[in-house]
Amino acid sequence: MTGTGEPPRPAAPRPAAARVPGARRPATARPLPIAVDTMGGDHAPREIIAGAVEAATEHGVRLVLVGQAPRIRRELDRYGFLGKIPIVHADEALDMGEGALASWRKPRSSIAIACHLIKQGRASALVSAGSTAGVVATSRLRLKGQQGVMRPAIAVALPTRPRPTILLDAGATADVKAEGLVQFAALGTAYAQILLEVDRPTVGLLNIGAEPGKGNKLTRRAHELLAGGSHGLEFTGNVEGHDLLAGRADVVVADGFTGNVALKTMEGTIGTAFSEVRDAMTASPAARMGALLQRRRLQDLRDRLDPDTYGGGVLLGLNGTVVIAHGASRARAITSACELAHRLAAGRIVERIREQVAATRTSRFGRWTHGERDGDRAARNADRPAEAAPDPELSPADTMPDRIEPPGTP
Amino acid sequence: MTGTGEPPRPAAPRPAAARVPGARRPATARPLPIAVDTMGGDHAPREIIAGAVEAATEHGVRLVLVGQAPRIRRELDRYGFLGKIPIVHADEALDMGEGALASWRKPRSSIAIACHLIKQGRASALVSAGSTAGVVATSRLRLKGQQGVMRPAIAVALPTRPRPTILLDAGATADVKAEGLVQFAALGTAYAQILLEVDRPTVGLLNIGAEPGKGNKLTRRAHELLAGGSHGLEFTGNVEGHDLLAGRADVVVADGFTGNVALKTMEGTIGTAFSEVRDAMTASPAARMGALLQRRRLQDLRDRLDPDTYGGGVLLGLNGTVVIAHGASRARAITSACELAHRLAAGRIVERIREQVAATRTSRFGRWTHGERDGDRAARNADRPAEAAPDPELSPADTMPDRIEPPGTP
Repeated sequence: MTGTGEPPRPAAPRPAAARVPGARRPATARPLPIAVDTMGGDHAPREIIAGAVEAATEHGVRLVLVGQAPRIRRELDRYGFLGKIPIVHADEALDMGEGALASWRKPRSSIAIACHLIKQGRASALVSAGSTAGVVATSRLRLKGQQGVMRPAIAVALPTRPRPTILLDAGATADVKAEGLVQFAALGTAYAQILLEVDRPTVGLLNIGAEPGKGNKLTRRAHELLAGGSHGLEFTGNVEGHDLLAGRADVVVADGFTGNVALKTMEGTIGTAFSEVRDAMTASPAARMGALLQRRRLQDLRDRLDPDTYGGGVLLGLNGTVVIAHGASRARAITSACELAHRLAAGRIVERIREQVAATRTSRFGRWTHGERDGDRAARNADRPAEAAPDPELSPADTMPDRIEPPGTP
Repeated sequence: MTGTGEPPRPAAPRPAAARVPGARRPATARPLPIAVDTMGGDHAPREIIAGAVEAATEHGVRLVLVGQAPRIRRELDRYGFLGKIPIVHADEALDMGEGALASWRKPRSSIAIACHLIKQGRASALVSAGSTAGVVATSRLRLKGQQGVMRPAIAVALPTRPRPTILLDAGATADVKAEGLVQFAALGTAYAQILLEVDRPTVGLLNIGAEPGKGNKLTRRAHELLAGGSHGLEFTGNVEGHDLLAGRADVVVADGFTGNVALKTMEGTIGTAFSEVRDAMTASPAARMGALLQRRRLQDLRDRLDPDTYGGGVLLGLNGTVVIAHGASRARAITSACELAHRLAAGRIVERIREQVAATRTSRFGRWTHGERDGDRAARNADRPAEAAPDPELSPADTMPDRIEPPGTP
């Protein structure tokens, strides 16, 4: 990639009444850049920028870096990349310990500014290694839920073979209704179509028994809806905890609480297994030699499970793609996250989700649209250009960078 | 153990108004036997009886075998043990595929008969490798919930170091209220006191974040109750999925849905890690040699996680101790399960739970006793001797074995 340094131009405002399922934005010749939050993460900004530069140089991903402009310039200079990637200045950053509240208190945070770039049509996606709670809250607040989507979900790719399994929700929405789980299935299907390149990915429901009657109230009801609905999903039934790494379904759906517990349990178990083997390796000099191969295999599994490798979670269901890299991300993880964001943006994930969710809404679950929900609030604003949508706490005057950092200025 | 073959005698009926916390049954000189369901499990009755014989001979556990008497006699004869362990005949058995309904349809199943022995005071505990759903449903129906206990929970011991972590509920009660989670904490505490020999075991709440405000509605409320109540529990806060194998708390509490997903995810992940290493081992002849040590360590971890080793789950909260061995249990697992049942009975788990739950009820959560719940129904009958409690579908005439198999008859 060779950044020209031009500020990315806003996309044309979407035509009014664009609610027709399947309606697509006119294809643009050149993809919008990915906005990278350089301030979030344990190793920000150095490792973030190093990873971004790698994504730009080695993988041709078009980027815009958001954060403290002087610091970003210094880092880019280290790689001789000054002036080659556009910079957008942000005054503030969310601390790693900050959660949902900070997204209100800091309207000029790097994540908020990056979201604003997406709303303005100057970026297609956001990559951040900031605290998950902060990224989720800020992007929900700034980007709003996609039309028709009740609740967002975080999708992660589990290292199954021969291809990954997508688990969602890994923690965005802890309390969800059965209808919300059906929507998660739609979000996951759209994601799997792009990531796995499968036309009709199979969907399983994470549950505590294989038979339809098993589970708690939530999953029993969700099973009914998924098994009975004409929602265009390839539902294959219940999946249990021990099936998660067995590749039983392309997409596994759970509420955000259960999904998060399952994901972290998996990570913790791999960590324990790994340290057991490492202990064994140090037991004797002979063991050290012989263990090399085994360690490598287990390390390989660990790497596959490691967010550094799989590129982080993706927050699905908002008016923009948000890739949440692990807080401890190093450059390699950021490169993966940028690639993933690029791939999802190129695959038109937001449009695909709109179509997929519309398909579930045209089924007998039409009543989902009642009530004051994320998706509905967004729907009321959906046809206005994003720039014109008034945000009481985020007026363009006080939050938007007054200028795009002119590239080339040392 | 040397079984004399005498039928175990009924214990004296409990004194009326025995609700005083801390009240204890007079210590009996000789512990009641453990009733072993010889008909449940994939390898029943052969492996079940083999394991029972091992528990009796090697570990001195007093037993009574429940099932098809002729078949049991044949098996005992193989070990030259005929006449040394009492037998109680049962006409029927629950199939491994049968769930809750079968417990109503088959009042003369081996599990139902074993429960009846407990109710009559002729056995202290039940060990079964039958289907978990069937064992849970039958023992809930026959033994009833302990006084004051809203819902039963299955506790399993996770292979943490230096000592196990007790996870409950692993699947008995999929939908539970926050107050129920506090009770699970009390059940787990009583269990840990016996199994871990710790006076005040620490209790953690399985959640999706370390901070108090994290979680879904259920866990947020449970955290409030656990952190604020004067319930005699050693609450240490939230634990996350990756802490489960880290030994962060002696007892980890979850609803039955989440606990089951976490346990099975852990088992599945260990299985995957193990097969990765096995694959690596077959990769080359040199690897096979060197890998031996690593494989052993991982096998060791797998063994520790294997229900065959940890003796199965324990259903807590009923008027009797129920140890549920894995359906695929072999003799070794049954031996462990018998030992565990023996240990819990000797530690007076039912009385301990009564005391622990009473402590939570004397706190500000006194309202738990309202409503028609398992524990309340049982409470109404609690002071009558169990034999006199009429069970519409289980009259003594049609379900009780008309005789205890006279030992010594070949």
